[in-house]
Amino acid sequence: MIGLGPGDPRYLTPDADEALRAAEAVYGYSSYLARVPTRRHQVHYPSDNREEAARAAAALDHAARGGNVAIVSGGDPGVFAMAAAVCEAIESGPEAWRALDVAFVPGITAMLAVAACIGAPLGHDFCALSLSDNLKPWELIERRLDAAASAGFVIALYNPVSRARPRQFGNALTRLRQHLPASTPVVFGRAVGRPDERVEVTTLDAADAKNADMATLVIVGSRETRVIARPGKSPLVYTPRATPGAAVEVSA
Amino acid sequence: MIGLGPGDPRYLTPDADEALRAAEAVYGYSSYLARVPTRRHQVHYPSDNREEAARAAAALDHAARGGNVAIVSGGDPGVFAMAAAVCEAIESGPEAWRALDVAFVPGITAMLAVAACIGAPLGHDFCALSLSDNLKPWELIERRLDAAASAGFVIALYNPVSRARPRQFGNALTRLRQHLPASTPVVFGRAVGRPDERVEVTTLDAADAKNADMATLVIVGSRETRVIARPGKSPLVYTPRATPGAAVEVSA
Repeated sequence: MIGLGPGDPRYLTPDADEALRAAEAVYGYSSYLARVPTRRHQVHYPSDNREEAARAAAALDHAARGGNVAIVSGGDPGVFAMAAAVCEAIESGPEAWRALDVAFVPGITAMLAVAACIGAPLGHDFCALSLSDNLKPWELIERRLDAAASAGFVIALYNPVSRARPRQFGNALTRLRQHLPASTPVVFGRAVGRPDERVEVTTLDAADAKNADMATLVIVGSRETRVIARPGKSPLVYTPRATPGAAVEVSA
Repeated sequence: MIGLGPGDPRYLTPDADEALRAAEAVYGYSSYLARVPTRRHQVHYPSDNREEAARAAAALDHAARGGNVAIVSGGDPGVFAMAAAVCEAIESGPEAWRALDVAFVPGITAMLAVAACIGAPLGHDFCALSLSDNLKPWELIERRLDAAASAGFVIALYNPVSRARPRQFGNALTRLRQHLPASTPVVFGRAVGRPDERVEVTTLDAADAKNADMATLVIVGSRETRVIARPGKSPLVYTPRATPGAAVEVSA
């Protein structure tokens, strides 16, 4: 189970590269698999984005038949990616799957790549939250947004929108505006680490949900997060390490 | 500003490796700097753990005099590490520092490395929280522990203890036991990615604060987190992607 990082090979760790080279078979969402060079004697098995459980089962079955099998994820496999789906399959699948040698190879997840583009917005306590309500109720997402914002966490939002979920991100911004000042810095990082990379710094009141798509990772600052203007250069966004006690809501 | 990852070179990205090779001067906490091979024409400037602000200022001053200067951090520079200290120094320092070309190179942060050792404990929404109260009041840490646990986030605890802060982690475990079942899985990952790596899986009621030190990253599961026993192999710990609505406290 290999994390490819944000996309560009310069983020692929030597550990991930070595595991990829050793694999006879590579399974993955077709967009991620397209980043993996095809090697002699290595077969690629692309599948669709929403087929995590079937992909995990096919790969585990292949491995149980003796193959050296890799599954690839963008970013880190353990962050809103395939590693949990593989564990779910192992727990509910044939006993033989528990005897397999499985290894998880970490990667640079999107929030780290986006943060590095712009400074240090995750500089103090932060959380990572997926806005997809395919696998959890929207009420739970709202509850987590409330908890994170009112306790002063910086918030990294994964999967802000998709074609099937056009309104979740706008609703989340509305929710966050109840807790955080209008001037709170917000970073949109799209396709970071890939040729069409685009990073935008805005504020919570000006943030427009239409500027996010499926390839966007959004970081919403805390009350402490700051923007450093730089003449002739893009601004830096960072969250200071020190937090005074008054920097969160008095009552949650 | 370069992230070295957990320690072993197999986690160092090609981007970080290239930036390190290009540097004339490398600044960092001496333990991290010891992982960087000394190269001809490259000077190392080690400093003590608690000297982040002075280290950042020295490196920026060096760069402002025309040097190609690197600062190294373990893990990712933007996660409880040097990137925020560098931004703080730029904001409060001489105007010339805002004109410097600065770049942040992401790395594999400890929670990703520990999670990858054991399965996928960060498989759904999670937060990262430092237990150090050097830079924020303990009451704020308690508030964040309450918010994160009661809203069902998995919690990665950085800096659980230090010589000067022996009791924080035990107090945090006591606090978390008020929100989470006794059987909640807890992972202690010590020095992951280094020769003395040690990973322990326990439960919230059995977790012993004495088993954590400064090199330990602790992951406390949510109500959803599961352990898969495997005959003859270490268990896998994972948090399923799907969360039913009832999986968090009814009242916060």
